[in-house]
Amino acid sequence: MIRVSLEETIGRIVPLAQAAAAAARARQDTLTKPAGSLGRLEDISVQLAGIYGQNVPQPKNKVIVLAAADHGVAVEGVSAYPQAVTAQMVLNFLRGGAAINVLARHCGAKVVIVDAGVASQLSPHPQLISLAIGKGTASMMRGPAMSAQQARQCMEQGIAIVSGEIEKGADLVGTGDMGIGNTTAASAITSVITGESPLKVTGLGTGISEAQRRHKSKVIDQAIKVNRPDPDNGLDVLAKVGGFEIGVLAGVMLGAAASRKPVLLDGFISGAAALVAYKLCPGARNYFIASHFSVEPGHAAMLQYLGLKPVLDLSMRLGEGTGVALAMMIVEAAARCLAEMATFSEAEVSEKTED
Amino acid sequence: MIRVSLEETIGRIVPLAQAAAAAARARQDTLTKPAGSLGRLEDISVQLAGIYGQNVPQPKNKVIVLAAADHGVAVEGVSAYPQAVTAQMVLNFLRGGAAINVLARHCGAKVVIVDAGVASQLSPHPQLISLAIGKGTASMMRGPAMSAQQARQCMEQGIAIVSGEIEKGADLVGTGDMGIGNTTAASAITSVITGESPLKVTGLGTGISEAQRRHKSKVIDQAIKVNRPDPDNGLDVLAKVGGFEIGVLAGVMLGAAASRKPVLLDGFISGAAALVAYKLCPGARNYFIASHFSVEPGHAAMLQYLGLKPVLDLSMRLGEGTGVALAMMIVEAAARCLAEMATFSEAEVSEKTED
Repeated sequence: MIRVSLEETIGRIVPLAQAAAAAARARQDTLTKPAGSLGRLEDISVQLAGIYGQNVPQPKNKVIVLAAADHGVAVEGVSAYPQAVTAQMVLNFLRGGAAINVLARHCGAKVVIVDAGVASQLSPHPQLISLAIGKGTASMMRGPAMSAQQARQCMEQGIAIVSGEIEKGADLVGTGDMGIGNTTAASAITSVITGESPLKVTGLGTGISEAQRRHKSKVIDQAIKVNRPDPDNGLDVLAKVGGFEIGVLAGVMLGAAASRKPVLLDGFISGAAALVAYKLCPGARNYFIASHFSVEPGHAAMLQYLGLKPVLDLSMRLGEGTGVALAMMIVEAAARCLAEMATFSEAEVSEKTED
Repeated sequence: MIRVSLEETIGRIVPLAQAAAAAARARQDTLTKPAGSLGRLEDISVQLAGIYGQNVPQPKNKVIVLAAADHGVAVEGVSAYPQAVTAQMVLNFLRGGAAINVLARHCGAKVVIVDAGVASQLSPHPQLISLAIGKGTASMMRGPAMSAQQARQCMEQGIAIVSGEIEKGADLVGTGDMGIGNTTAASAITSVITGESPLKVTGLGTGISEAQRRHKSKVIDQAIKVNRPDPDNGLDVLAKVGGFEIGVLAGVMLGAAASRKPVLLDGFISGAAALVAYKLCPGARNYFIASHFSVEPGHAAMLQYLGLKPVLDLSMRLGEGTGVALAMMIVEAAARCLAEMATFSEAEVSEKTED
């Protein structure tokens, strides 16, 4: 795998190309429709122009990086499912039976499956990228989830993975996750970085009861007290209350931004990765597109902190990149309208009467 | 064209198949994801099962009926664009340069373009279905927009068009519109049927000023006073304050429901057609899927009256079926997840721990 440095990657993240964005906005106003009537599609096309530095961007190759890992905090009774499910679902991904497989086929995206630190031993598989970061994190309730070195390692591996895909032609990137216990880590990260209370940003995850939710938020309270993560240091937050897949996805986000590619965030877990990436490089945010609004209550706080408005709101809470696969179709539609619609003069359509 | 009767069509609209819907819901709970975690996708798949009467529905052929017509009320200064734009846009649809053409190509839908009553003469074209209903409606401010016979005629033509497409294999139907002045008709229909004031349900249409909006709502006030449409009689409302394309689309909706096919409503104009169809046959509503939430302020009142929740909310207000084309991709995704995902037992994934 390519050796990359986190700092070098962050150094390559530049502001969006304002001239291309302005040209795209100007072109939108010449297309055969009332100005602004395509709403978010117009805004997305302008963002894409700024990201790629092209007046009429036409993304072609979609890739979703789906990172899986286990969480030591699962032993504290925070999830409705046993830890074995993480590895079982990775096998399901490899066989093509999970929701993300169906939706990626539907939208035409490649799925890159990453074992970022699953506790069970997974047999080698040609479609599985295995990162030897650790066999699940430690319980954040009793100490840091991972070492500072591991936190850096998973981010740099994420950068390397996405950089490799971009070299092979990927130009529209998305993130997805799997990991029993990972909403606990995501809620902890959200609480630390946004300053909201754990109770407010802790949800039902895969389907726990209200009593279990209160227990889960106390586990997070305790984890924050024990570890005292520095909210302004993304790597420190990741190490103390994060997870390996969250670190990999944060790396994917920074790597995509450094290569001037848009990155679609899935839901709550990807949002936690985005918070980590944002803390390390606020400018990376301009390359982010929030795919959907998750049912998890902490997602709103994340999106507000990041200043992002989701494309879809379908009451989903599955992860895996399922929201990304759906939103990618909308993002492509946005680019195609900008590229393929006739202008008023081409179509000989009369323009708006002056007010 | 096939000769159809409105009453016969309404007589064929049956309740959804409860057994198939229940089987689809039960299957959702066996798929490898936390129960309910695909949110709206699960609900849509259950609705589709009930509509088709199939436990695992798999729609394949998408068609969008795009009806265009002119409105006599355009002479009252209610639109930002001249009336000539309706015909010019029909030519743009035929050449493939409009937003709906781009989005239909993107989602793989066929577009059926219907001249339901455009004022300007349009040359015959192999892709254009010309209905000789009238050369635009009369101004509703001065009397009924059309005769009772014309109202019936456009609905029956809509039924015939969609029935022909379904015979040719279409199994996922959508509606789209074009017509300078047609938000005025749609607002009038909304006010009459929902009981909201014209001012509340009148918006900026293609982009008029606030002063023009107030004028537009007064035109609607006057039209309702002059015509006194019967809010409980869909055909009467259509005739007095409607439009030819709205009637055709209402017919498409009833025809699709009679053939047990889902029909995706676009935005505000399609919503007005849905109100007319609903008044004629409340049970048709079970076959409707609201594609998106329009920027037009009257859309919320319509959706509430119909009890529909839109799939998308992208701040769009273009019409043409653009919201339908986008939502069709989500509806197909919903069906594919139900059909293609592995079950817990197939994938050997552990199920939820008992609470």
